[in-house]
Amino acid sequence: MPRTLRIALAGLGTVGAGVLRVIRQNGDAIAARTGCRLEIVAISARSRGKDRGLPLDGLSWEDDPVALARRDDIDLLVEVMGGAEGAARAAVETALARGIPVVTANKALLARHGNELALTAENNGVALCYEAAVCGGIPIIKTVTQGLAANRIERVMGVMNGTCNYILTTMEKSGSAYAPVLAEAQRLGYAEADPAFDVGGIDAAQKLAILAAAAFGTRIDFDGVIIEGIDHISLTDIEQARDMGFSIKLLGVARINADGLEQRMQPCLVPETSPLGQLDGVTNMVVAEGDFVGQIVTRGPGAGAGPTASAVVADIIDIARGIVLPPFGIPARDLARPARSTSGADAAYYLRFSLTDRPGALAQIAAALGHQGISINRMRQYGHETEVAPVLIVTHKTGRAALDLALEQIAALDVSLAPPVAIRIETV
Amino acid sequence: MPRTLRIALAGLGTVGAGVLRVIRQNGDAIAARTGCRLEIVAISARSRGKDRGLPLDGLSWEDDPVALARRDDIDLLVEVMGGAEGAARAAVETALARGIPVVTANKALLARHGNELALTAENNGVALCYEAAVCGGIPIIKTVTQGLAANRIERVMGVMNGTCNYILTTMEKSGSAYAPVLAEAQRLGYAEADPAFDVGGIDAAQKLAILAAAAFGTRIDFDGVIIEGIDHISLTDIEQARDMGFSIKLLGVARINADGLEQRMQPCLVPETSPLGQLDGVTNMVVAEGDFVGQIVTRGPGAGAGPTASAVVADIIDIARGIVLPPFGIPARDLARPARSTSGADAAYYLRFSLTDRPGALAQIAAALGHQGISINRMRQYGHETEVAPVLIVTHKTGRAALDLALEQIAALDVSLAPPVAIRIETV
Repeated sequence: MPRTLRIALAGLGTVGAGVLRVIRQNGDAIAARTGCRLEIVAISARSRGKDRGLPLDGLSWEDDPVALARRDDIDLLVEVMGGAEGAARAAVETALARGIPVVTANKALLARHGNELALTAENNGVALCYEAAVCGGIPIIKTVTQGLAANRIERVMGVMNGTCNYILTTMEKSGSAYAPVLAEAQRLGYAEADPAFDVGGIDAAQKLAILAAAAFGTRIDFDGVIIEGIDHISLTDIEQARDMGFSIKLLGVARINADGLEQRMQPCLVPETSPLGQLDGVTNMVVAEGDFVGQIVTRGPGAGAGPTASAVVADIIDIARGIVLPPFGIPARDLARPARSTSGADAAYYLRFSLTDRPGALAQIAAALGHQGISINRMRQYGHETEVAPVLIVTHKTGRAALDLALEQIAALDVSLAPPVAIRIETV
Repeated sequence: MPRTLRIALAGLGTVGAGVLRVIRQNGDAIAARTGCRLEIVAISARSRGKDRGLPLDGLSWEDDPVALARRDDIDLLVEVMGGAEGAARAAVETALARGIPVVTANKALLARHGNELALTAENNGVALCYEAAVCGGIPIIKTVTQGLAANRIERVMGVMNGTCNYILTTMEKSGSAYAPVLAEAQRLGYAEADPAFDVGGIDAAQKLAILAAAAFGTRIDFDGVIIEGIDHISLTDIEQARDMGFSIKLLGVARINADGLEQRMQPCLVPETSPLGQLDGVTNMVVAEGDFVGQIVTRGPGAGAGPTASAVVADIIDIARGIVLPPFGIPARDLARPARSTSGADAAYYLRFSLTDRPGALAQIAAALGHQGISINRMRQYGHETEVAPVLIVTHKTGRAALDLALEQIAALDVSLAPPVAIRIETV
């Protein structure tokens, strides 16, 4: 007679319904793997009457998620409501404080309050698991905290937002501009009616901040993420980058530098022949680099009911198997508090200038870069039929501060007809 | 004061020395993650005097690995000697029978005796971990047994031998034939002096058999793997496949069919734009497909001291954290014993015929295929200056039995100047 793990499920949206489906469809296989039957005993959700295409007979209903977390007949709380504050946070805190383990898919909550929640979990001797909060179905949290645990992880990076990757790769393939491709993504359900959270890089930045903590054993520092969205990326830059052998991705990069933790979620160029450069559509990809293992690259579905529920239930299975690890790999009180890296690592940059078509214009650009010690790796000037001469430059590695100085000087030149474009080239 | 986990290390070759280095270099970080210091207390290896570039002061030496496994001052045995029988097997059995957990990188041992060793481990309540035995640094065993544990895994496949992938991709890129590329690989240290174990597919087939057991919860059935090496792959086929949009890979595929477990390690065509098709050089890649998560693809180093030691030490860390799972995800006594799938799943095939250049030759080929119900998707006949007319056909999906019948009939035709070539096209 197997044990039973009694689960309270807070949230019955796409992910919550997916969790119910996984447990019902694969319950026998999971019992064989854990020696434990997973049983959802109580649920809460915003609208009780809504038809979710799932029978909910026999499940206790709570209108208040906090009341759900307080029930005496539960062994585990699954929180898939979303939101950094309010009911989700209160329910998770209530459960952990009672010594009830929590599985959550809530990246906003973790990015904001992960450090405190991890402390609460550890002080009460229970697990706080959040695999589903970072890149949906890709088991990247388990990979960095367990699979690569023998390494000092030196860099994690990846494409962590399917909406942005869909938009960028569709622009590249179709030759359409940002606005119509976004509209098409909204029509297809790949982008929200209000796309700011995705295209502004916030969603992906939350994931990056959580992943960095788990990979490096540092406290989550969401406010330390440099965030830049994709809404200013022009078709011209996508096409010119491609022509020079690069793809533009909304790339999250976190790395420990000599002066602290660098966290960036911003459009970057990557070689089009690299795994990241070849990643099309809504798929996610995460790269983790360790001092002994080298580079491990994982790609998979970053969103959707099935993949996200797969990650939630994998966490439940860990708990059913009695696995209780510190949420970020090392005890929360021991997490490092690195400074924020002020400059970030040096990098090569893709630069695009719009110049007056007259003798000496290019020389002024080259001189301004040279004065800041920035050397040029490749340069192209395209044939043009307008007054504007487009000039592309790929630099050698340089610091961002020197580059910003040079660009400021160049923008002020008479020959500059539009602000220069600068996009980082990430080494992958 | 942290606990200490006392480790006996059997084998001081590339991997064993790597394990020593990881523990020495990252010992503090690992102690922070586990609350436990890893200490290697005793070792055994073939030649005691050999300079390994590592100080071995303070370590007890045993000439006999079984004596090492019998020591009273150890908490864990790491076996990185290799070999399916003899001292490696005896040492692992000895440790497990005493209730000492074992971490091994030994795929030959697992492929042959994994079922019995798992039973011994479970009967004695200890862990038997083998992440390093399958694809080196890629944490694929943890991925299928933990990360994807909520899923029924439907197929696992991948490029699991770096030597073969190096040879095939170098042939494709350089236009050189098999023999000189193999010689170059041997010179570079990518292939052994006796390459049969790699190029014959045995090494990769061992990994596939182990991975299939962990992914599906089935007993290891190494003898059930259909194995075909790469030594008969011609440059012609690599080039023609490329011309039709495919790459040839030594691909391992395991899948549960209606009539049983299918396990194949054989050259296959995959679309050149797929992640598997784009995989160059010695890197490995594993694809796992689950009913809820969909497809998860992981690439990374499949061999080498650092990556393999990374996997060994990750297993040690699991044990230091008190994680003891059944080696193949479910208890060994409950592992399914599926029949061997007799036919395997239907597939499309790449066919190459060498025909007499005379009217009606092609019609006879098409007729022979048609009689077996095999329909043609694409066909090409190339211009040629010899008597031999090369004809390429890509079929629609067909059963292998029907195809074999058709090829037998075609080989017997007067117009056939050489045995037909048939390579499976795997859907990826």
